[in-house]
Amino acid sequence: MFESAEIGRSLDKATFEAEEPALREALLEAQYELRQQARFPVIVLINGIEGAGKGETVKLLNEWMDPRLIQVSTFDVQTDEELARPPAWRYWRQLPPKGRIGVFFGNWYSQMLQGRVHGRFKDAVLDQAIDGAERLERMLCDEGALIFKFWFHLSKKHMKARLEALKDDPLHSWRISPLDWQQSKTYDKFVHYGERVLRRTSRDYAPWYVVEGVDHYYRSLTVGRILLEGLQAALAESKPRVQLQPHAAPLVSSLDNRGLLDSLDMTQVLGKEDYKEQLALEQARLSGLMRDKRMRKHALLAVFEGNDAAGKGGAIRRVTGALDPRQYRIVPVAAPTEEERAQPYLWRFWRHIPARGKFTIFDRSWYGRVLVERVEGFCSEADWLRAYGEINDFEEQLTNAGVILVKFWLAIDQQTQLERFQEREKIPFKRFKITEEDWRNRDKWNDYADAVGDMVDRTSTEIAPWTLVEANDKRFARVKVLRTINQAIEAAFARD
Amino acid sequence: MFESAEIGRSLDKATFEAEEPALREALLEAQYELRQQARFPVIVLINGIEGAGKGETVKLLNEWMDPRLIQVSTFDVQTDEELARPPAWRYWRQLPPKGRIGVFFGNWYSQMLQGRVHGRFKDAVLDQAIDGAERLERMLCDEGALIFKFWFHLSKKHMKARLEALKDDPLHSWRISPLDWQQSKTYDKFVHYGERVLRRTSRDYAPWYVVEGVDHYYRSLTVGRILLEGLQAALAESKPRVQLQPHAAPLVSSLDNRGLLDSLDMTQVLGKEDYKEQLALEQARLSGLMRDKRMRKHALLAVFEGNDAAGKGGAIRRVTGALDPRQYRIVPVAAPTEEERAQPYLWRFWRHIPARGKFTIFDRSWYGRVLVERVEGFCSEADWLRAYGEINDFEEQLTNAGVILVKFWLAIDQQTQLERFQEREKIPFKRFKITEEDWRNRDKWNDYADAVGDMVDRTSTEIAPWTLVEANDKRFARVKVLRTINQAIEAAFARD
Repeated sequence: MFESAEIGRSLDKATFEAEEPALREALLEAQYELRQQARFPVIVLINGIEGAGKGETVKLLNEWMDPRLIQVSTFDVQTDEELARPPAWRYWRQLPPKGRIGVFFGNWYSQMLQGRVHGRFKDAVLDQAIDGAERLERMLCDEGALIFKFWFHLSKKHMKARLEALKDDPLHSWRISPLDWQQSKTYDKFVHYGERVLRRTSRDYAPWYVVEGVDHYYRSLTVGRILLEGLQAALAESKPRVQLQPHAAPLVSSLDNRGLLDSLDMTQVLGKEDYKEQLALEQARLSGLMRDKRMRKHALLAVFEGNDAAGKGGAIRRVTGALDPRQYRIVPVAAPTEEERAQPYLWRFWRHIPARGKFTIFDRSWYGRVLVERVEGFCSEADWLRAYGEINDFEEQLTNAGVILVKFWLAIDQQTQLERFQEREKIPFKRFKITEEDWRNRDKWNDYADAVGDMVDRTSTEIAPWTLVEANDKRFARVKVLRTINQAIEAAFARD
Repeated sequence: MFESAEIGRSLDKATFEAEEPALREALLEAQYELRQQARFPVIVLINGIEGAGKGETVKLLNEWMDPRLIQVSTFDVQTDEELARPPAWRYWRQLPPKGRIGVFFGNWYSQMLQGRVHGRFKDAVLDQAIDGAERLERMLCDEGALIFKFWFHLSKKHMKARLEALKDDPLHSWRISPLDWQQSKTYDKFVHYGERVLRRTSRDYAPWYVVEGVDHYYRSLTVGRILLEGLQAALAESKPRVQLQPHAAPLVSSLDNRGLLDSLDMTQVLGKEDYKEQLALEQARLSGLMRDKRMRKHALLAVFEGNDAAGKGGAIRRVTGALDPRQYRIVPVAAPTEEERAQPYLWRFWRHIPARGKFTIFDRSWYGRVLVERVEGFCSEADWLRAYGEINDFEEQLTNAGVILVKFWLAIDQQTQLERFQEREKIPFKRFKITEEDWRNRDKWNDYADAVGDMVDRTSTEIAPWTLVEANDKRFARVKVLRTINQAIEAAFARD
């Protein structure tokens, strides 16, 4: 994999200088066109051998192009805010918006390689990390991102010579590599595991480019040309950058015309006295669990979805009623803001992921994509079809990081909804809760029921199951919600 | 100041229960109206004596109102990301947007009181903190925010009884107060310094409300009513919530019709050879200074303003050319995003303040308010007139936290600008740099010159001086910029 990048490729100065001005102009032009279109972001991953010119090349790109439209991020030591969240959070918060270029040093590949080279974990964990990287990149590309992955390479001989040379150069000595690079064993391991990583993560939509780094002219011109050609090609495409056609068969094929929601026993009720007692009990239990010191290792995340007027707000209040307001945050999900629209779909949820010890409630959530966006046609079919897999990946990352995830669908029947709508229209302080849109959504009752069925079938997983809540009776629903949360926390504690 | 809150005020349950439903409805109504108007944010500061019901009251407010539109923030231990920036950064990042309510526990008052009570500093520093709080609140109110400051009070006798009672209550024992509150000396000091703080920071635009906390019913109803009446009054106002008329005299009164910019010697040039030599020298110097370990105590922030086509971009590139791209970030300032428009003016700059050891370059900046916004009428006269003072406050906070701040105005004359515009229109990869707007701005040359003169007069301070850069000759300008930055860093190191 690295053979052709160890032969000492070089370029003479004259050739470089003859080509540089035109390349530079073209790169600038492409960069402004990128900003103008603001259709997709560009992510450049910088990896490879120490001393192979990673930093110098990025510096040069910043000189060639407009550095105001490039953001360079480096991911060395995690801050404590980052340590309290899933590992990918730090990458999400640095993603460049559409129209911009983000350069990532010390990215996910650096992390996994360093971990493996220093023996912090074995191949199986490395492969998990590789798999995670693939899923992340696949998702970013599906969202339109243009990813360039550069591996700057050097033969062992060249690396040693280069490190030696840098040591004597006062201007560069500060960048002297970590001591372990001086050892040839480190080099061997790095190349060995690097080979594995590159082999498994070079994909048509995000291939690796291995660049021999020994010669400044060769290296710079190579990277510049790859960037330019990739940029120009992507800018010329008129369609969104989606790769694969979704499967042609319809999502559901229910022969008996019965959906998941039809199987709920909607007649379940809870008497007033039982409710009072059970509510107090479950609230006290939640309050105790949230204060348990085992909670420090976890975060709690509750998702509330449901029919309009199913009582999400009321259920949320019974949950928060058990807690100190300093312990939780509620994120009401509405239309995305301008900054959110310039990012991949999941970005606006990643930014609200709770830190360890905290509790975040999403009033509507990332499932909007496979519910309202699907039914109303706010996104393409391809977008919502791939969302199921992306959401499962996302939730797996959350639960791997210790987040306790509970997801509720509050279900009511059509008659109950009608009665609640009419009641809302009558009571002054409830009139804010009912809009024209709510009435329109009602007409699409069956479409929503199908969407809910598919959603639960495809995203109710062992690590993040859906809880369907029969919500015709508000009291029954509220207690079920609280009890489910408590059980989820206790189950997580039991697994610790 | 606290006398009337130590008399054991209470309310009977029946009165409370008679009033509660209507209060609750009215609060909800006001809250939805607040969201609907989205004209201003509401900030609720929670302070006072331990055990006086701070947490319980906020909990109740969350039950009465819609908790989805309230965000409760608590500022206890600073994260390392917060520690690396000016103290106010953590408050700015939690400000509620327009239309929302933010509740701040452990806010600036808690910090200053704890510091003084525990003897970490003396009265002079407390007074500085008080002064800072006043300026911050004044600015927030000028931006339209509605601030409620609650001091929950208890007499010493009541506090002791309350702490005793809480200790035995299993549901509350987790909230048991820090040990030092058990000592009556702590209470005395807290009340003593609290009195000083309240006296100095109770202002017509943001008064304190002292609420006796001993009785749940009294306390809750009092806070609820204050909030409701304040909200209703603010929602009924049709004008922006500006308090004071700016001074009536014109800003400048130049009798000789000469401005600051007229006094620059625009003929200064630098020969090609001298430029090469000095540029290399200053770049090496900057590179060395940024790697100096004394830089870890500082951050560097450079502001670039100037006439259109004055060469800001080119100057910035000569600065970044000296550096590793991982060391700096460039923030190009354009029209504010939707999320930024929902916040006070300075919010969008606060979010980009560099952490210690980092360097941020603002390509245009907060001075937009007194330049383009003033000249084009994008904000009211009152807004830009008060901006000078707000900016000085802001910059003082930066420099107090160790930020090295350099500010450049790149000046060219009208003829030079005309030539550069014409050149830009001719060269393909420069055509992005010239727009219709640039030509329109040219017609307002004199207005801009006046605005620049006022800006420099009012915001060029010892801690954050303006550097006027004669930029007809690009080479001269670039070297002057670099040299100024280097001198500023060296001066800061010398002061350490």
